[in-house]
Amino acid sequence: MDKTERLMSLIEEEIASSVPTLSGELSAVPEMLRYSLESGGKRVRPLLCLLFCEAAGEAAEKALPFAAAVEFVHTYSLIHDDLPCMDNDDYRRGKPSSHKKFGEANALLAGDALLTHAFYLIAQGAREGRVSAEAAVGAAAELSRLCGAAGMIGGQYIDLAYENREATADVLFQQDALKTAALIEAACVMGLLAAGADEARIQAARDFALGLGMAFQITDDLLETAEEGVSSDEANGKVTYVGLLGEEEARARAKAYTNDAIRALDIFGDKADALKTLADALLRRTK
Amino acid sequence: MDKTERLMSLIEEEIASSVPTLSGELSAVPEMLRYSLESGGKRVRPLLCLLFCEAAGEAAEKALPFAAAVEFVHTYSLIHDDLPCMDNDDYRRGKPSSHKKFGEANALLAGDALLTHAFYLIAQGAREGRVSAEAAVGAAAELSRLCGAAGMIGGQYIDLAYENREATADVLFQQDALKTAALIEAACVMGLLAAGADEARIQAARDFALGLGMAFQITDDLLETAEEGVSSDEANGKVTYVGLLGEEEARARAKAYTNDAIRALDIFGDKADALKTLADALLRRTK
Repeated sequence: MDKTERLMSLIEEEIASSVPTLSGELSAVPEMLRYSLESGGKRVRPLLCLLFCEAAGEAAEKALPFAAAVEFVHTYSLIHDDLPCMDNDDYRRGKPSSHKKFGEANALLAGDALLTHAFYLIAQGAREGRVSAEAAVGAAAELSRLCGAAGMIGGQYIDLAYENREATADVLFQQDALKTAALIEAACVMGLLAAGADEARIQAARDFALGLGMAFQITDDLLETAEEGVSSDEANGKVTYVGLLGEEEARARAKAYTNDAIRALDIFGDKADALKTLADALLRRTK
Repeated sequence: MDKTERLMSLIEEEIASSVPTLSGELSAVPEMLRYSLESGGKRVRPLLCLLFCEAAGEAAEKALPFAAAVEFVHTYSLIHDDLPCMDNDDYRRGKPSSHKKFGEANALLAGDALLTHAFYLIAQGAREGRVSAEAAVGAAAELSRLCGAAGMIGGQYIDLAYENREATADVLFQQDALKTAALIEAACVMGLLAAGADEARIQAARDFALGLGMAFQITDDLLETAEEGVSSDEANGKVTYVGLLGEEEARARAKAYTNDAIRALDIFGDKADALKTLADALLRRTK
């Protein structure tokens, strides 16, 4: 088993054991949470969290409570995004979305419960001595800021606000920096906080996350356009990077963000090799 | 200005200064949060939080970040409960509910943002040295557990699960213990955690909160029935305490819970006088 496989298996175990155990009238609730948590997500964010902890010189395992918290937040965001009043998606990764499976009200509550429980996992990690109280406070502050109104939720708000009018390139960049890069940033920074890393490393992780998140979004757009002739956003009447910038400029920006991300890892020396491999795989993908 | 007025004014200031400042594309978001935060709530939970901090021998002010966090959670729960897929309420305290004012998607996001920001307020309280890191970790653990799937959200789930079948008295008690008493418990315990109180006092606060929460719900039911002849829940086809137990037994239970709540305060001696006054006012109210 190579290192990534080992970490992936730790992540799956941590997520599975992080679902609250409930009985009696609430006995069906954990299944609702697991349905969305275990629907084939690639666990990129928890893996980044563990790899940054390791890049700062601590055992990757130390960041496991934070890694699970990030995945709970990611999963809640997908459930709420799929709701009829948002993107109204009936399917998620080939399975009925949470509200199609359990009804809209239960899906709303499942999302609320996952978000709430993410903070329980962080706090409980400190109460059980797996991380320090200071690390937990820092992680809760980062996660709540980066997935809150000034972060991920803000990105979703901008997306909605431009449903019926055309976004500029600046707006589109801000939207994706908040919708996508912010939670990636939380994952990376929380891994470093578990390791007690210094401010210079934390700033490097923020630069890495912005580069990775933005390059990922632009690459997505380029790949969809190449394959389908038009990206799903464009088909839905939304502006896209390719549409706004042209293919050549979009490709140049994706490359610049990728380079920014990889360069930000320099401060970690060869301890960031696994992170570089992961970033490479994500950014140089062809589908 | 009497003490309660002074604390109320501190609470209002803390809530107002806790709303995130956002600009540019997000500049309309704080107004959405304020709309629901400042809609005439009685601030019972933040007041309990401060009074418990004081009952444990610390200045009430110390618990202000936790008090604001509890009110943010309470406010998010009202926004999500009012959504069309939940109670579908067009009005809240005489004003259009959040989704009637801002649209369903924005109301969903406003609720998510308030819940998320509650944990930011707790963590930030520690980062700014207003509370200790240990107190913040304890507060985040209590709040996330008591407002999560095993707490407030669980109560909401039970409420939904019995929409089309009749609940027993046991189910109704469990539902209200989770829907109402759990967040009150969080408020009380978090006040004690800000003060560094011992386990015996924390257990007393839990007993107080359960008594207060349950007595409050049953009293609500009794008052509505006395005034309207039928409570709003009963009119909506839901079982009620009066319906299930009869008026006499419901009154006896409310009294027993009230006595439990008041007795639980004994451990605090005369430091709990303000709490007793508040509990009295809430439980012996006539409308």
